[in-house]
Amino acid sequence: MEYTSEQAPFTSQEREAIYRVIHARRDMRHFAGGSVEPEILSRILAAGHAAPSVGFMQPWRFIRISNSELRNQLAELVEAERQRTAEQMDERKSEFMRLKVEGIRDCAELIAVIQAPDDGTVFGRRTMPDEMALCSTSCAIENMWLAARAENLGMGWVSFFEPADVASLLACPSGARPLALLCLGPVKAFYDKPMLETEGWRQRETMEHILAEDHYPQ
Amino acid sequence: MEYTSEQAPFTSQEREAIYRVIHARRDMRHFAGGSVEPEILSRILAAGHAAPSVGFMQPWRFIRISNSELRNQLAELVEAERQRTAEQMDERKSEFMRLKVEGIRDCAELIAVIQAPDDGTVFGRRTMPDEMALCSTSCAIENMWLAARAENLGMGWVSFFEPADVASLLACPSGARPLALLCLGPVKAFYDKPMLETEGWRQRETMEHILAEDHYPQ
Repeated sequence: MEYTSEQAPFTSQEREAIYRVIHARRDMRHFAGGSVEPEILSRILAAGHAAPSVGFMQPWRFIRISNSELRNQLAELVEAERQRTAEQMDERKSEFMRLKVEGIRDCAELIAVIQAPDDGTVFGRRTMPDEMALCSTSCAIENMWLAARAENLGMGWVSFFEPADVASLLACPSGARPLALLCLGPVKAFYDKPMLETEGWRQRETMEHILAEDHYPQ
Repeated sequence: MEYTSEQAPFTSQEREAIYRVIHARRDMRHFAGGSVEPEILSRILAAGHAAPSVGFMQPWRFIRISNSELRNQLAELVEAERQRTAEQMDERKSEFMRLKVEGIRDCAELIAVIQAPDDGTVFGRRTMPDEMALCSTSCAIENMWLAARAENLGMGWVSFFEPADVASLLACPSGARPLALLCLGPVKAFYDKPMLETEGWRQRETMEHILAEDHYPQ
């Protein structure tokens, strides 16, 4: 089979826009309420669905939370987990408790991302079935994140929850795995750096630390 | 602490470029040899390092394979796994064996992506430690994929290998997990659709199948 493509090459201007969004994307926790127009939301979800997946299994499922009582229940689950996390923080507990770690009640849209029950795909995941399905779903989330930023909307990935509790609230079938509560919507401003870097929680690693030739970086 | 941002809003032209790359990105297996200029490779790696990570743990490690004997050894591991996968394909075995599933010997650059040993981060991953580290590393790979496409280079994620064998070849410490062998470089043309869709291996899911309101999509 021949593969041809009529897609025009990306120009340097396009390339700049793509690098700008990759570097300007932030994990947002401060939102300004408001709303997201349906066509914008559709574009962001379609960007997620355009992600790569191992064996083309497309394991991502998106649930838009429109019921305010359901959003409250999810917020309560997240707050309970934030408290449990704090208990394990030891000497950094008070520092942790001062951080804003989610914007579930403040964001315009809340989207749960669930990994579908394993469909038994062998292609490309015989040796790493769990890892490769998870990786596919998170590529979808990164696409949505970049799309949201391009729409000048903030997005934050909340992972403070017990997955079984979220699965139960959202009527997920057995084997489905909630991975993210995505807060999405207008923000007053985007963080210039990752919030945890600005707050002194942790520093950015150097390229020397993460990159090497022919062997694991030392 | 106040968060301010002097970043200009993304324009509609920039947004179009960003959506175009998200939808034009392909998992490539056909490469045209050649080379990748060092500054382009650096930009792609920096795009990976700009990914989000839970608790800002930055668990991704990149290994550029420059030794041709090492590349051969990796190619042999992948070929062995391709054969083992075929054995599990049952009635689709011959169809599978006709597909090109990797371009390790043909691509200009080969980059292994390894997840670092768990550093014990609790922030945002108390309930899903393994999942959240994996998700962070794969967001880095998706960033690299989009950056490569913006550079008019193909990229393919090869996951046909026994992770322990790759870890051993690349002198990874205990607990490090190889997740991807990324083939990167010039291609003759980009696939118009995912290769597995064009080849009739599997179809794209409808949005109705993957999206619902307030409950898991039925």
